[in-house]
Amino acid sequence: MTLLGDVDERQLIEDFRSFIKPEGRVGPGDDAAITLDGTVVTTDIVTFDRHFPAGMTYEQFGWYAAAVNFSDLAAMGARPTGFLAALALPSTLEVQAAYDIMSGIDQCAEFCGTGIVGGDTKRGPGIVAGTALGTMDDRKPMLRSGAVPGDIVAVTGPIGGPAAALTAIDHGIESEEARDSLYMPIPKMEEGVALSATGAVSSCMDLSDGLGTALNTLCKSSGVGMDIELEFIPREDYVEEISEETGVPVRDLLFDCGGEYELLFTADRGMLRKIYDAEVPFHIIGMVDDSGFPELLADGKRSRIGNGRY
Amino acid sequence: MTLLGDVDERQLIEDFRSFIKPEGRVGPGDDAAITLDGTVVTTDIVTFDRHFPAGMTYEQFGWYAAAVNFSDLAAMGARPTGFLAALALPSTLEVQAAYDIMSGIDQCAEFCGTGIVGGDTKRGPGIVAGTALGTMDDRKPMLRSGAVPGDIVAVTGPIGGPAAALTAIDHGIESEEARDSLYMPIPKMEEGVALSATGAVSSCMDLSDGLGTALNTLCKSSGVGMDIELEFIPREDYVEEISEETGVPVRDLLFDCGGEYELLFTADRGMLRKIYDAEVPFHIIGMVDDSGFPELLADGKRSRIGNGRY
Repeated sequence: MTLLGDVDERQLIEDFRSFIKPEGRVGPGDDAAITLDGTVVTTDIVTFDRHFPAGMTYEQFGWYAAAVNFSDLAAMGARPTGFLAALALPSTLEVQAAYDIMSGIDQCAEFCGTGIVGGDTKRGPGIVAGTALGTMDDRKPMLRSGAVPGDIVAVTGPIGGPAAALTAIDHGIESEEARDSLYMPIPKMEEGVALSATGAVSSCMDLSDGLGTALNTLCKSSGVGMDIELEFIPREDYVEEISEETGVPVRDLLFDCGGEYELLFTADRGMLRKIYDAEVPFHIIGMVDDSGFPELLADGKRSRIGNGRY
Repeated sequence: MTLLGDVDERQLIEDFRSFIKPEGRVGPGDDAAITLDGTVVTTDIVTFDRHFPAGMTYEQFGWYAAAVNFSDLAAMGARPTGFLAALALPSTLEVQAAYDIMSGIDQCAEFCGTGIVGGDTKRGPGIVAGTALGTMDDRKPMLRSGAVPGDIVAVTGPIGGPAAALTAIDHGIESEEARDSLYMPIPKMEEGVALSATGAVSSCMDLSDGLGTALNTLCKSSGVGMDIELEFIPREDYVEEISEETGVPVRDLLFDCGGEYELLFTADRGMLRKIYDAEVPFHIIGMVDDSGFPELLADGKRSRIGNGRY
C-alpha cells in the first residue's frame, strides 16, 4: 500500500497525465491546455498551508492565487478572457479576510486585462483553486517542445527575487523589494502575447517552479541541451546583497527556488530582430545545443544544472 | 469581527458576486458563466468532508466531482468541450485512491462526450475543484431569468432519489437504487443541449441545491411566481416506500434536499410541441404566475414552498 505522502508530487502530476485525452489541441505537459474549440485554460491550487508566508496579506494571497494561473497563460502567449475563483475557506476566517482574498484576485485579473467571471465558495482549510481562461486570437501558442540547437535561451527579466526574499526571511533580514517580488508576482501577460506574435519564439514556459527545473523541462520537452552562462543571468542588486549577507550562493538563489514569474524562452537567432521590434525586454542567458541537458558555465567551469527544490 | 462560520454560505456567494465583472456575457447568478469569446465555464468544489457519504467509493467521488460541474453546463444547454481537475489530497491517502478519483472524473467526462484536458495536484485535506468548459455552438443559453406568467414548469425526470437515499442511510435501510442516484448522479447533457435547441425554454437551472431552492431561485431571477402540484412531481417508487418506512413526508424528500441532477425549466406553453419533437422526456409540475414566489398545491391546500436545507 503506497500513500500519497510517499510519492513525489511532480511524479503524481506526470502519472495523472495518462488521463488527459487528445480532447485538447495542446497539452498535457505545457503550461496550459487548449481545447478543440480554441479556449486556452489552466488551473492551479494555492493553499494557506503552503503559499502563505509570514507577513503576506490576504489581498496579496488572492493576487498570488490569480497570478500563478495568469502566468501559465502568459507562457503560451494567450490573452486572458476570464477568471474563476473556487475558494475553500475555514469557518474561523474573518469575513473581511475572505473579501480581501477576492479583492486581490480581482485586482490581479484587472491588471491582466480581464475579470472574475464566476466561482464557488465552500468551507475548507484555506484553498484557492483558480482557473484562467484565454484566447490565442490568431497567434500560435508557444509550447515547451520547439527548441532546436542553435537557438538562443533568454528570460524576460531579473531572476532570484523570491529566493532572496525567502532567504532574507529565514535569516531575519528586512528587504521590502525582495518581499514584493515574492508576495505580488507580476504575470508577464503583455510580454507573452507580444512574444507569441513575433513568430520567433521556438519554446517558452514560466518560471513558477524555478529556473533550474524550467531549464530541465524545456530540454526534456524539446529533446535538446543548453549551455547557460551564470554571469548572463539578470538579477537585482538585492539578490547579490542577500547572498553576501547570508552566505547562500547566488547560484542557489537563481536556480533552486520557485515562485518566479518571468518567462523563459528560446528563439531562432536569425529572427531576434522581430523580438527587438516587439519591444519585449529580454536577456540572453545561453544557447541551445544537442547535449540533452542544461549545463552551467561559471568561473570557467561547466556543471550540470539540476531541478530546483520546489 | 464576523467569522465565515457566522454567515450563510449562499449569502457569501451572493456577496462575492459584486466582484464579477461584465467580462462575462452571462452571469453572475446563472449555473455557468459565458465569456466574451463564447466559452461557457463553471467551477465547483467538492470535499471529502462534505460530499463523501459512507459507502461511496473514490471512483464515485471522482464521478460526482465532475458531474456537479457538467450539470451546470447542462442547465445552460452547453455542449462540454473539456474538464480540468485540481486536486488537493492528503498525504495519508493511498495512491490507488487518487487514481480512482481521477478515473471516476475521467469516466464522467467521457460520459459527457469530452475528456480531462488539464489539472493540478497538491497536498490538502481532500478537495476536488473541477472546472467544466463548454460551447453553445449556435444555440442560445438557457438562463434563470426568462420565465413569464403562463409558462409551464417542468422537470426532466424523477425527483427525490438522493433525499430518499440519505434518509434510508440515516435509518439503516438498504436501498441500492436510491444510493445510486446519490452516488452517481447523471448530468443531463443531451437533455440540456436538446432543450436549448428547441428555443421553447424560457428559463432553466439544475436541481443540485434541491427543488425547493431551485423553484425559489427561478421565481426570484425571473420576477414571477409559480403554482406547483405535489401530485404532478415525478418520483420513483422507492421514494414513496422510504417515506412510508421512515415517516419522513414525501414532500420533504421532494423539496428539501440537494444532490438532484434533473433539470428544472419553464417553457412557453404554445411551443411545447417543439420539446415533444426534440424527444426530451419531461414532466409538467405546475404553471408560472405573477405571485412572486412558488406555492404548492397538495390535498386541496396551498402553501408556500421554502428553500430546502442544502
